[in-house]
Amino acid sequence: MSKPTVYEAVPQFGRLRNEVLYGDVWNQPELSKRDRSLATCAILAALGKNAELEAHMKMGIENGLTVEELRGLVVQVAFYAGWPCGVNAAKAGMELFAADLGRS
Amino acid sequence: MSKPTVYEAVPQFGRLRNEVLYGDVWNQPELSKRDRSLATCAILAALGKNAELEAHMKMGIENGLTVEELRGLVVQVAFYAGWPCGVNAAKAGMELFAADLGRS
Amino acid sequence: MSKPTVYEAVPQFGRLRNEVLYGDVWNQPELSKRDRSLATCAILAALGKNAELEAHMKMGIENGLTVEELRGLVVQVAFYAGWPCGVNAAKAGMELFAADLGRS
Amino acid sequence: MSKPTVYEAVPQFGRLRNEVLYGDVWNQPELSKRDRSLATCAILAALGKNAELEAHMKMGIENGLTVEELRGLVVQVAFYAGWPCGVNAAKAGMELFAADLGRS
Amino acid sequence: MSKPTVYEAVPQFGRLRNEVLYGDVWNQPELSKRDRSLATCAILAALGKNAELEAHMKMGIENGLTVEELRGLVVQVAFYAGWPCGVNAAKAGMELFAADLGRS
Amino acid sequence: MSKPTVYEAVPQFGRLRNEVLYGDVWNQPELSKRDRSLATCAILAALGKNAELEAHMKMGIENGLTVEELRGLVVQVAFYAGWPCGVNAAKAGMELFAADLGRS
Repeated sequence: MSKPTVYEAVPQFGRLRNEVLYGDVWNQPELSKRDRSLATCAILAALGKNAELEAHMKMGIENGLTVEELRGLVVQVAFYAGWPCGVNAAKAGMELFAADLGRS
Repeated sequence: MSKPTVYEAVPQFGRLRNEVLYGDVWNQPELSKRDRSLATCAILAALGKNAELEAHMKMGIENGLTVEELRGLVVQVAFYAGWPCGVNAAKAGMELFAADLGRS
Repeated sequence: MSKPTVYEAVPQFGRLRNEVLYGDVWNQPELSKRDRSLATCAILAALGKNAELEAHMKMGIENGLTVEELRGLVVQVAFYAGWPCGVNAAKAGMELFAADLGRS
Repeated sequence: MSKPTVYEAVPQFGRLRNEVLYGDVWNQPELSKRDRSLATCAILAALGKNAELEAHMKMGIENGLTVEELRGLVVQVAFYAGWPCGVNAAKAGMELFAADLGRS
Repeated sequence: MSKPTVYEAVPQFGRLRNEVLYGDVWNQPELSKRDRSLATCAILAALGKNAELEAHMKMGIENGLTVEELRGLVVQVAFYAGWPCGVNAAKAGMELFAADLGRS
Repeated sequence: MSKPTVYEAVPQFGRLRNEVLYGDVWNQPELSKRDRSLATCAILAALGKNAELEAHMKMGIENGLTVEELRGLVVQVAFYAGWPCGVNAAKAGMELFAADLGRS
């Protein structure tokens, strides 16, 4: 059998992800999905969680953010969470930024 | 004389705040002021900087965020930065939330 | 009316706390309540969330931790999360420690 | 000669590790080795120190923790330190979880 | 009896502080006391540990740092650890900065 | 064309790096370049930003820090930011430490 995912490795974690995080929190009406993506990317960048940030930047584009807005986020992160968090956020979005510049 | 502000106490810091942070970064076109406020609140909540978060939540309302959107942010923060960060974000916005509920 | 709690101020947050955090996560069988308290205190101490840490140290005593074990936790935190986190954890447990020493 | 370890590269650091961290702190009576492991894994997960977390999860099993208890820790970490810390903790324990599932 | 200090409340913590932190680490020859103070203030500012930062800024002056150097540190912290960490560092040093400006 | 750097990917970020971070902050007179390097390495080590730490340790040597002083920094970081931050700082400086020991 193939190597389990983190959610298969810890089944309660997978259940809570499906039922609560994606099945409940993301669907609540207070904040749009586009804004949840922007906030989530900002949080992940501030905490230096780059693997998740890369995934959420791509999901953010699907939810209506633009590549240019993600560039603005990188700078805002650099000033409020520190320069290295800005650098890491730019790395996490590199695939999107490079494609946008025609250099992917 | 009165006690100096942090920006009077460290004059270079005050100069950079005026020239760069508020005179440059916040005015760049990639991200709207409303979205910079949302991202900044998300960053400050994730890093547990409550005094700044309280100020930026109020500035966010002036920049076009709604109180209800800030409620959505609290929950998103709780799940992505940990429950205590959500609690702290709710405390930072308490004046806004209480007024919105007619309980200020 | 009195000032709202954080969970009244952000109703979705209160719902998720009751349904998910206390109504689900804390009741799962993988880890005992005593061990969940120990782990939660360790997490809160590492993240410097002192108000929550103080409450969870007291809840931990109800869940079967001893005051002496919390003293051991303070030292472990100091070495793995840094000295100031140890100092803060000792402050968060001060009421318990002082009572244990007959100096409350 | 081979590349030095971190403790050979910084000899005072190696001396303090042997004399203080492992020669003193871990042997103190306030907290059992099993509980020190649980607390240390919780701290490392909250701080996102995955290389150390992977090593301490394995050491925790030797000190009496069960794989199922580590699964419970992953979920507790996700809620108190944020979802990405839970994901990272699950990754750090993947070798243990996969072996337990017969999928290593 | 009076309320115990954190080091009286957790005696092993007090013993390790005296024997190891101040009795050993701070006396090692690799880094001068002045430079240990500068590094310690930088670390505490980056981690937002303001009570300890205030004490170590004053100890740093005794160890040979100048008030002007601490002003430079505030700005360096703001850029590398994020603006709110700079603001907090300026607050932690306010007594020193105000006295230096003749406004204490 | 080759893959863009982070500063090419986010042009405002590159502009601010050149104009502000390196063109202004690092040249201010309050703190020497050697001391800015020591403080920056301490901050980066405390925040676990290892790629940047490795680069700034090398820049620190150019700015007048010694390899032995960086060894002292590793230990100071371990006690004030937690043991894993010391381990990571030692890894970030490994090339310098190994060369100094004649084991590169």
